Amino acid sequence: MKELEPPLIIVNFKTYLEATGRRALELARKCEKVASELGVSVAVAPQAVDIAAVASSVSIPVLAQHVDPYPPGAYTGSISIEAVKEAGAVGTLVNHSEKRLRIDEIDEVVKRARDAGLEVVVCANTPEVAASLSALRPRFIAIEPPELIGTGKAVSKTRPEVITDTIKLIRQVNPEVIVICGAGITSGEDVEAALNLGAQGILVASGVVKAKDQEGALRDLVNGLVRGARFRFRGV
Amino acid sequence: MKELEPPLIIVNFKTYLEATGRRALELARKCEKVASELGVSVAVAPQAVDIAAVASSVSIPVLAQHVDPYPPGAYTGSISIEAVKEAGAVGTLVNHSEKRLRIDEIDEVVKRARDAGLEVVVCANTPEVAASLSALRPRFIAIEPPELIGTGKAVSKTRPEVITDTIKLIRQVNPEVIVICGAGITSGEDVEAALNLGAQGILVASGVVKAKDQEGALRDLVNGLVRGARFRFRGV
Amino acid sequence: MKELEPPLIIVNFKTYLEATGRRALELARKCEKVASELGVSVAVAPQAVDIAAVASSVSIPVLAQHVDPYPPGAYTGSISIEAVKEAGAVGTLVNHSEKRLRIDEIDEVVKRARDAGLEVVVCANTPEVAASLSALRPRFIAIEPPELIGTGKAVSKTRPEVITDTIKLIRQVNPEVIVICGAGITSGEDVEAALNLGAQGILVASGVVKAKDQEGALRDLVNGLVRGARFRFRGV
Amino acid sequence: MKELEPPLIIVNFKTYLEATGRRALELARKCEKVASELGVSVAVAPQAVDIAAVASSVSIPVLAQHVDPYPPGAYTGSISIEAVKEAGAVGTLVNHSEKRLRIDEIDEVVKRARDAGLEVVVCANTPEVAASLSALRPRFIAIEPPELIGTGKAVSKTRPEVITDTIKLIRQVNPEVIVICGAGITSGEDVEAALNLGAQGILVASGVVKAKDQEGALRDLVNGLVRGARFRFRGV
Repeated sequence: MKELEPPLIIVNFKTYLEATGRRALELARKCEKVASELGVSVAVAPQAVDIAAVASSVSIPVLAQHVDPYPPGAYTGSISIEAVKEAGAVGTLVNHSEKRLRIDEIDEVVKRARDAGLEVVVCANTPEVAASLSALRPRFIAIEPPELIGTGKAVSKTRPEVITDTIKLIRQVNPEVIVICGAGITSGEDVEAALNLGAQGILVASGVVKAKDQEGALRDLVNGLVRGARFRFRGV
Repeated sequence: MKELEPPLIIVNFKTYLEATGRRALELARKCEKVASELGVSVAVAPQAVDIAAVASSVSIPVLAQHVDPYPPGAYTGSISIEAVKEAGAVGTLVNHSEKRLRIDEIDEVVKRARDAGLEVVVCANTPEVAASLSALRPRFIAIEPPELIGTGKAVSKTRPEVITDTIKLIRQVNPEVIVICGAGITSGEDVEAALNLGAQGILVASGVVKAKDQEGALRDLVNGLVRGARFRFRGV
Repeated sequence: MKELEPPLIIVNFKTYLEATGRRALELARKCEKVASELGVSVAVAPQAVDIAAVASSVSIPVLAQHVDPYPPGAYTGSISIEAVKEAGAVGTLVNHSEKRLRIDEIDEVVKRARDAGLEVVVCANTPEVAASLSALRPRFIAIEPPELIGTGKAVSKTRPEVITDTIKLIRQVNPEVIVICGAGITSGEDVEAALNLGAQGILVASGVVKAKDQEGALRDLVNGLVRGARFRFRGV
Repeated sequence: MKELEPPLIIVNFKTYLEATGRRALELARKCEKVASELGVSVAVAPQAVDIAAVASSVSIPVLAQHVDPYPPGAYTGSISIEAVKEAGAVGTLVNHSEKRLRIDEIDEVVKRARDAGLEVVVCANTPEVAASLSALRPRFIAIEPPELIGTGKAVSKTRPEVITDTIKLIRQVNPEVIVICGAGITSGEDVEAALNLGAQGILVASGVVKAKDQEGALRDLVNGLVRGARFRFRGV
């Protein structure tokens, strides 16, 4: 259950108050409950300060939202791979549109995280950037058109070609990367559509975190994942 | 004991392995022990991931090393003031030479942290910058010439005029700021010299964290602080 | 005429097409014409690439929009103080809201530019930041609330307290700084209001650059400056 | 002569005083002279402020050292593609180790520059990053291990595997990119070695700019290029 395997949903807590501190724990437990009920992989990405408490409270995979590209040392204010790992995270997002890195930094993070045994989910804003980043051989790439993030207009319905183009371009560079997508996802239908287009998972934030009924919102998404995965993986 | 009052020593854990995870807890406990024995204020600044565990384990003040200048929300990868506060920190460093911010961002952090009831220790690299930052009315300013950080050449001995100039320039702008100093501090003599020059506290990192005997190194510094404070505060 | 003296208007060309290349020259000549006709100081700030051509074509002061805080050397892609000076600029803007710098970088720019004989106009977003930056002793500070830039809602009418607070706070730190203001200025009335509030000049961009009749728009602003200055300086 | 065709040498002027202002013109003329004498392609990359004067004075290709990833508009302090183009540059370096960009910004620059008819030479620090960036389909990639830049230890002799690995990894992603290399190049032998390893050109800075005899230093490099190209291209 701690492993990050497709098909999957990653819930990004960002720094929303609804997913900070005590409420980060509560939301993580809801995610664990839904994952357990429906037998799918749901990972949570709380902010750095909350990783340790969340990771010691739930049995689902916990990701950092960002790590810095440095070795341990004189890097005041940074989030180190070593700390994130020791706190119980199994991996990390990196290069989210709200925390973009330079290409040389992403290269460093991917290499260092891999050496440390952490999974890396590298975010990309366009199919071209996604293909570019796949050459660094992260295990996961998340395509998210930034202009749709938080809008409720699902990338899988509003701009399906972003997903198909991303997969096509990535495949030319690296056939092994697992492609997930995000931006504007709020319903099971959005998730199902994404999987039908070839995505193997979903990155979601406000669609769950800001929902009045967080658990219900997630259950709806997970049901879409199950339907899409049945189609896509023929019998998951 | 949780309060941040001069004369004080702040131990910055940076992302040193010797002060990460389990070892962050161990070092914090050593700091607590020395603070308690000698009756002085010692604060610790672990990296974000370790704040909660440290703050729940010791009774001395815990600071973040950095917080981001944003309200709660869609700020993936950021360290929010709210999370740091809920995790038990009483304040934060900001604008350390290893994590410099823009001036408008420092202004935001100072205002938001103050509103949240967090202490702010703003770092500065030169007397002019220190004076400039004191206009934002943080409670603490830490002057650290970056070229001396980690060298073992104490600012208070190698470049005493940096401390006296800083205090002079700051006093013209803001008489209330508490001025501490750092960079190259490794001995009680260095600390005593700093207090004799007018500093009201010390920011130290490798001098304690990388010492073979962390507790002994800190005790030496604290003894210097006691001697300096006796002189400076006439009987602290 | 090449000197930067209050009361003055600085026209920031940004990277607008209407003020790039050949059109930067044309706009600079219009500014020169209006300055000459009405006997006031109008300075222009073309982008780096256009500084040399503009400075060799007009007799009014030319400013850079930004310079980097480095000495000459291995700084590929930077804009050096030495190049800007040799190209004929008499000074530079720095820390514009569209090109914010870290506080230690602003300190460097102010010192290096002063040593090189260049005027510095440091931009600030709030009265507190303006006061803070005045401690670095630049000759000019430009207060511009970023949320009004390009809106046509003049800071001097919409938020007059920003100007008066800025002047009050700056005066407590540094009585010699010349305070100008900007954001949303599009008419002579806006300029006059700003001078009546105590500003000694105006920073304007789209209000002139994007105007259908650039020369007419500038003439209107300059007339406002003359009226305001007559009131303020009693007979300029 | 204005075209950027391999085999070629690009001389990066950085912000060295020896290649600023009037001296940028002088150095560009030396480059033009050597290029003309020996019949090879030598391009120059002066800093932004000097592009227009250099481009109007010599008939060899002129590159910018950096352009910003924005359309024309409210981008104070930026270097616009449009200005660089109108000033006479035929292309630009981007992502030099001294001016790194985020991956999404590099993607923007490559697309915008291509649309504007500007050549793009994207710099990379490692073979993996070079391969990654080649997926964005720039025409040129320059591999430069930053730790060798300015050392006089030529990448082609000290770390030849960086060049061969880069070419191998890039070819798997994009067979059409022209690969050049740099870092530590100071002699014709260094250049010849680079071409023998498969590079199609050289990026050099201090090796020419800081040489006592700039023209002689460049002539030595160009002779190495001719020898290497004869081997590599069998008769250039």
